[in-house]
Amino acid sequence: MDPLRVTVWNEWRHEQRDASVAAIYPDGIHGAIAGALREHSPGGVVVRCATLDEPDHGLPAEVLAATDVLVWWGHAAHDEVSDEVAERVQDHVLRGMGYVSLHSAALSKPTRRLLGTSCVLRWREADDRELLWAIAPSHPIARGVPPVVVIPRHEMYGEPFDIPEPDELVFISAFSGGEVFRSGCCYRRGAGRVFLFSPGHETDPIYAQPEIRLILANAVAWAAGERQLGPPPSLHNAPSGWFESGDAGG
Amino acid sequence: MDPLRVTVWNEWRHEQRDASVAAIYPDGIHGAIAGALREHSPGGVVVRCATLDEPDHGLPAEVLAATDVLVWWGHAAHDEVSDEVAERVQDHVLRGMGYVSLHSAALSKPTRRLLGTSCVLRWREADDRELLWAIAPSHPIARGVPPVVVIPRHEMYGEPFDIPEPDELVFISAFSGGEVFRSGCCYRRGAGRVFLFSPGHETDPIYAQPEIRLILANAVAWAAGERQLGPPPSLHNAPSGWFESGDAGG
Amino acid sequence: MDPLRVTVWNEWRHEQRDASVAAIYPDGIHGAIAGALREHSPGGVVVRCATLDEPDHGLPAEVLAATDVLVWWGHAAHDEVSDEVAERVQDHVLRGMGYVSLHSAALSKPTRRLLGTSCVLRWREADDRELLWAIAPSHPIARGVPPVVVIPRHEMYGEPFDIPEPDELVFISAFSGGEVFRSGCCYRRGAGRVFLFSPGHETDPIYAQPEIRLILANAVAWAAGERQLGPPPSLHNAPSGWFESGDAGG
Amino acid sequence: MDPLRVTVWNEWRHEQRDASVAAIYPDGIHGAIAGALREHSPGGVVVRCATLDEPDHGLPAEVLAATDVLVWWGHAAHDEVSDEVAERVQDHVLRGMGYVSLHSAALSKPTRRLLGTSCVLRWREADDRELLWAIAPSHPIARGVPPVVVIPRHEMYGEPFDIPEPDELVFISAFSGGEVFRSGCCYRRGAGRVFLFSPGHETDPIYAQPEIRLILANAVAWAAGERQLGPPPSLHNAPSGWFESGDAGG
Repeated sequence: MDPLRVTVWNEWRHEQRDASVAAIYPDGIHGAIAGALREHSPGGVVVRCATLDEPDHGLPAEVLAATDVLVWWGHAAHDEVSDEVAERVQDHVLRGMGYVSLHSAALSKPTRRLLGTSCVLRWREADDRELLWAIAPSHPIARGVPPVVVIPRHEMYGEPFDIPEPDELVFISAFSGGEVFRSGCCYRRGAGRVFLFSPGHETDPIYAQPEIRLILANAVAWAAGERQLGPPPSLHNAPSGWFESGDAGG
Repeated sequence: MDPLRVTVWNEWRHEQRDASVAAIYPDGIHGAIAGALREHSPGGVVVRCATLDEPDHGLPAEVLAATDVLVWWGHAAHDEVSDEVAERVQDHVLRGMGYVSLHSAALSKPTRRLLGTSCVLRWREADDRELLWAIAPSHPIARGVPPVVVIPRHEMYGEPFDIPEPDELVFISAFSGGEVFRSGCCYRRGAGRVFLFSPGHETDPIYAQPEIRLILANAVAWAAGERQLGPPPSLHNAPSGWFESGDAGG
Repeated sequence: MDPLRVTVWNEWRHEQRDASVAAIYPDGIHGAIAGALREHSPGGVVVRCATLDEPDHGLPAEVLAATDVLVWWGHAAHDEVSDEVAERVQDHVLRGMGYVSLHSAALSKPTRRLLGTSCVLRWREADDRELLWAIAPSHPIARGVPPVVVIPRHEMYGEPFDIPEPDELVFISAFSGGEVFRSGCCYRRGAGRVFLFSPGHETDPIYAQPEIRLILANAVAWAAGERQLGPPPSLHNAPSGWFESGDAGG
Repeated sequence: MDPLRVTVWNEWRHEQRDASVAAIYPDGIHGAIAGALREHSPGGVVVRCATLDEPDHGLPAEVLAATDVLVWWGHAAHDEVSDEVAERVQDHVLRGMGYVSLHSAALSKPTRRLLGTSCVLRWREADDRELLWAIAPSHPIARGVPPVVVIPRHEMYGEPFDIPEPDELVFISAFSGGEVFRSGCCYRRGAGRVFLFSPGHETDPIYAQPEIRLILANAVAWAAGERQLGPPPSLHNAPSGWFESGDAGG
């Protein structure tokens, strides 16, 4: 099988503005994610990166057309993403592209368009420890993942999380402050698969943690699904008996 | 309990342009729907109508704020609905307003925004008979509805229908041409309930049919849910221990 | 509307054997639950209690036939429940009776039969504090319930919890030891509604806590659904054209 | 990857009693299914067959322990399947074995145990044509399957079908008599995947039809999931801090 084609999108702002973030992610958050995917992809993976400040945010139609799975990390600049690109991402997901929405990207334009809800949540930047529980241990995204992943320090994301009921709930997190969060949520939208994964605050080295890197790779492999990009969704007019000819291609 | 407050929105274009539609719906499609709701609402209902060509399409914020359930019928002019009003509808659904999307309104801006998919489908205007099967006969929306409702003549809507997996699937239709369609689909979005119901082509007197009128009333009663309009969804910052005081109002 | 008819089933063993449990529940766990339902039922409720050691465990067919919602508390004697009564409960749920499964009743015969899974979980009797989060605050079962209910001390139930994906997930709990649990889960089975609610260990006065009492009453009201007990499910032979006569009663 | 290990279980009664069925399935229904799997399994498949009248119905524990996916065809003798074997099948599914339930096996003991409902339906043996619509064309089970598969003549199975809401609904069928049926339903139960597929009446050569053979192979590949048979589900006692040591194996 051909190597999986993954595009990792990152705002790439925190790393350039804030030395403490740059120290954690010298190659950008996208660089760390790309490294995790390469590390865990036995079948091979071709990773491209794209960032907010590139033309078309690095996501012209030809890039998405050659992408099996798009990973999205955004936080401080959701509003700077153009509606056009957000719609393009949504359209490609409906046509079959996988989409992995990380951390604060729950609030990004593409994620909100795909889910239809506000995706707001409770949050706190403090010294919480996050415990990430694999509640569906037989799910492909939890393959090889221990029953609980301890993230020593992380921003708290807490319920209620305004999302549709997930098609499959894979992870629930508990924070030392007491809150809980649905931290790993699967959806099917059109021909595409969507995974929301909440770990990934920029000031904590989450994407260096081995279990998290494995989950990222599993998530991308799952979201790839059938790796078939169909035509844009469209209304079909179907005359009576269209399928009777034995040529039910329509 | 106070009477249910329903707003019926209609494009109101076909009835004004096409004498054959006006003959079927002399009071507009909205008038027929309003009549069905009044006929079947033992607890009482206050119905307001709103149409495309009014200012704000008849749906300024104060109208939606006083609406328990919004019924939406649109077909030929989805693009003329402003993004602002579509977003306003979506926001009110997330805050708890019910929403019933009829027939071609699957393709309307509010419905697509709430579901996140294209909602495209196969269609045919011909002489199909539609059989509407109540596959969840114990669902409140099927209360009093016979196992199958025969719609003598109706536009065909066929699968694949590009929608998320419904939270509850209540009706499936079969057409004499052979196609099938998920014709009654329930979703929860934020604090609101959404019901998609496909019958209602403008050239067939669907909304005069007794069983369909009952279903409309049942759907509105179901979609009303808790009848609580919450505040707009927003991010909450929650300091450590915010709930420890015994005043967990946040 | 007629008062809701609720049957509260309890093993009633701990209270008789263990003075410390009897001190918490002098009228039995069933008595405390019955009290909670009466306290919160504005529309009126008629509560009957039934226990393991009665003939037919207090649940002959005529009792279930007159029950809108059955509440089940069991813990130490699941195996002593006869298969016949477990099947009878299942059959009545499929016909439309509501069913609320409390605490360790997740492992009871009726609950396992209805869900199809083992319902096993992680557990610990220690000094955990449980935080019960209403993740679906607009759900009828969460009506009037604060965002988080603090249970000062409770047995820990932790994931993975071997249940089917809930149709609606209403509560998630966090324990001070770090574990999480899907503590309030809704299912539809046949014409009946099922709610699993995990709080209720016999050595902690859970059912005296006001918020928990409110949740019990909300759960029973929700599980009542349409309050229609249909005939036993059966295969229907349907001759061609059976519904064409206009008498689609079948 | 090792070849998939599939066990095809068949009552094998109709073929031995009824010459017209034997003429359609000279190698038994199990033989036809096995042939379909071999024909469409590029990765290789090892098929074993098992039948009702063998000791333990051909399904002793060691056979199930070496089975990635069990395919079940039953019709006339559901009651002759021992509870012990039905429970064994259920247990193995919860541990990770895939399970494909064909045609009337919806009413078999293992299927009913896994779903928790009666699985009853409307039926008719007549001259209906069945149209099998792929409503989720991007699902792995629909891979390569045309939008509609025409089954020239088949027993009618009609709604309401007493099953839990499927986790993923892949096929809906329409019959020329007018009925509809959810004919391809996916469930997750424990670590296992379950697929119900309704085509397969013994007097029609359904399993010789190329599209159906492809669907069978796709279904088995999907149901195989992670191909990991875990230990029997059991309650875990977890002392406080069990995962703190960094050895979160439990």
